[in-house]
Amino acid sequence: MKEFPELIEKAKAAKTASRKTALLRTDAKNEALEAVAEVLWENRESVLSQNRIDVAAAREAGMKESLVDRLELTEKKMKGVVEGVRMVKALADPVGSSDAAWTRPNGLRITQVRVPFGLIGIIYESRPNVTVDTFALALKSGNAILLRGSRSAINTNRELVALIRRALEKTEVPVDAVALVESMDREAVDAMLTLKEYIDLVIPRGGRGLIDMVVEKTIIPVIETGVGNCHVFVDASADLETAKRIVINAKCQRPGVCNAMETLLVHAALAEGFLPGMVRLLEENGVEVRGCKKTREVAPGVKEATEEDWGTEYLDLILAVRVVPGVEEAISHITKYGSGHSEAILSNDHANIRRFMSEVDAAAVYVNASTRFTDGGEFGFGAEMGISTQKLHVRGPVGLKELTTSKYMICGDGQIRE
Amino acid sequence: MKEFPELIEKAKAAKTASRKTALLRTDAKNEALEAVAEVLWENRESVLSQNRIDVAAAREAGMKESLVDRLELTEKKMKGVVEGVRMVKALADPVGSSDAAWTRPNGLRITQVRVPFGLIGIIYESRPNVTVDTFALALKSGNAILLRGSRSAINTNRELVALIRRALEKTEVPVDAVALVESMDREAVDAMLTLKEYIDLVIPRGGRGLIDMVVEKTIIPVIETGVGNCHVFVDASADLETAKRIVINAKCQRPGVCNAMETLLVHAALAEGFLPGMVRLLEENGVEVRGCKKTREVAPGVKEATEEDWGTEYLDLILAVRVVPGVEEAISHITKYGSGHSEAILSNDHANIRRFMSEVDAAAVYVNASTRFTDGGEFGFGAEMGISTQKLHVRGPVGLKELTTSKYMICGDGQIRE
Repeated sequence: MKEFPELIEKAKAAKTASRKTALLRTDAKNEALEAVAEVLWENRESVLSQNRIDVAAAREAGMKESLVDRLELTEKKMKGVVEGVRMVKALADPVGSSDAAWTRPNGLRITQVRVPFGLIGIIYESRPNVTVDTFALALKSGNAILLRGSRSAINTNRELVALIRRALEKTEVPVDAVALVESMDREAVDAMLTLKEYIDLVIPRGGRGLIDMVVEKTIIPVIETGVGNCHVFVDASADLETAKRIVINAKCQRPGVCNAMETLLVHAALAEGFLPGMVRLLEENGVEVRGCKKTREVAPGVKEATEEDWGTEYLDLILAVRVVPGVEEAISHITKYGSGHSEAILSNDHANIRRFMSEVDAAAVYVNASTRFTDGGEFGFGAEMGISTQKLHVRGPVGLKELTTSKYMICGDGQIRE
Repeated sequence: MKEFPELIEKAKAAKTASRKTALLRTDAKNEALEAVAEVLWENRESVLSQNRIDVAAAREAGMKESLVDRLELTEKKMKGVVEGVRMVKALADPVGSSDAAWTRPNGLRITQVRVPFGLIGIIYESRPNVTVDTFALALKSGNAILLRGSRSAINTNRELVALIRRALEKTEVPVDAVALVESMDREAVDAMLTLKEYIDLVIPRGGRGLIDMVVEKTIIPVIETGVGNCHVFVDASADLETAKRIVINAKCQRPGVCNAMETLLVHAALAEGFLPGMVRLLEENGVEVRGCKKTREVAPGVKEATEEDWGTEYLDLILAVRVVPGVEEAISHITKYGSGHSEAILSNDHANIRRFMSEVDAAAVYVNASTRFTDGGEFGFGAEMGISTQKLHVRGPVGLKELTTSKYMICGDGQIRE
């Protein structure tokens, strides 16, 4: 494998810095976050000017406008970035809190304490705000961070990281607590994914392709922030006015995010009375509906849903609709096609609700609410790294607490094992 | 990649069974465990006779006697296996317990509930008791299990799994909740490690080589049960009689296990007064001491410790000894050579204790107690799958709770996202 001295040097320095960040008091981390917020805002013009270089190059290379939009920073977006740092500053520090403590019969006192992972590696796509967001979350949770962004954002990211490091110079946080891998060689990512000696945790932030690539290549533990093929099941006993509001909200309020609904499942008893009006309302909200046979019978003009539709995360104003005989088939459909993100039942039948909540295997299951609430902010975590759909370590929003691991501290007075 | 229809079929059936085991009441799981204990004990003779075939073949193939000892079952060992099942039966069921629950300002009630992973894959070496132990732990935590043991134990494992499945026939637990991959082709393991669609979690149980192979090849989340290069640091202020007892216990009580001490670090102030007597006592207990320069000055006749010694998990009556100037250098030594398992400081100096506990990065850090307590039983968990030295999900003993993940259950009355 090709060697990347820059990568090794930065990983090593960041790992060393992580031993310091792990021990920092909350005050010191907060002061550093405030300094970063100030320096970023004061120097927003230099960030925006580097960003213009990236944006021009991206357009030149023919990047889609929807992607350019994610790459592009504006004064308003910079304000959001800086506010994000101050929001993380305001969150409670998870480090040092204790999940459990007990005393054994032999007098050993065991305390399970939250401690940082150490060095977190982030591999991400075009959005440069991720650079600052993930740094703030990592630092507040006592970790150092090694960033590897995309080629398209390299000038912006370089400026952001330079400013963060400059801000840290006057604080107790070592500047090496954040570093950007600047080699844009694809093999630099492969090399980074083998640095188990330095990197304690990898978080890929981007589309399915990026996540799969990371999972396949790395030997470092990964938190996968995942795809959301989310379902809403409208049961026969649902309050239909509530159902309409929730369905429209789950699909239309922000269709491009992972907790938006992608398939609507409707109880057969509601096919005639409820579904045609629901389809009309969706269409009035700009949604293209793709339906099963029964849906197309009751709502003529609806396009046919294919097998592929059931498995697709549209991230767009498109919705697959299927009529099912009951809760059992709704659960089977979700088991077969769901991605384990967020699933909702709208019902007033206690037995069906209980069954849905128990049997659906997902990070979040909802009764009578929109799937759009699966979010660190909406859960009350303040901010997050994304939504994990894996089962190991964290399932759901990845907040500050989830960016820590634990350590057992055991105090004795001479105990030996008999 | 070569195809293994047996593997796919068993994984698929076990995954399906896992949806049933996830929903079983504690009573049903306990009744099944009792049935398994009874059937295994009643049929111990058929297990022992299959085991004799494996043992004879292993000896024929020239297996080391220490390994044959791990492979061989006796009536007494079978009794231990059956008692292990009943011990797991007696443990509290983690499924359905709640780690956290809160209500959001909009009235959404969020509950984080413990749920099983689903299907756990175990890849393990010769000891056939692992077959039964891991099945019992997996079932009690609501999981199904797919086992892939070693070629040397295949006849024993086949008989054990057949008996477990026979016992399950009369219970509410589906027989497919346990299956043994019988293909002994090495590529069957590679194929198993790609079955992300069916297997939710992989746990390798064996030596470093096996664990590294699994981590490198799999795309499924892994819990690594790890190597223990454990240290005891005797600080200047330690109670020396207590220190002697703990050092002897940590090294000699059971030298072949991962929580045994492998290197003793001694404060320079104790080099002359304490170390010679300590070395003598260790030698009287059959320990071969390998020392640093200073150790060899004060305890003539001690072999020289090389760089390799500091990094070695002996799992034997061998001990590396190093004199260090103080707590800072003790921590540096542990940071450099430790494996993040169990580390102890023996001291009465509060500042040094605090520093050691904060800065040493390990699953378990001890004050004035033997490292030998890092163990599910000793922690009060009852039983465990091993000791995790990774930081993701679980760090320390892997008990029943750690064999579950969580699910957020969110109850609303029509909430939509604004």
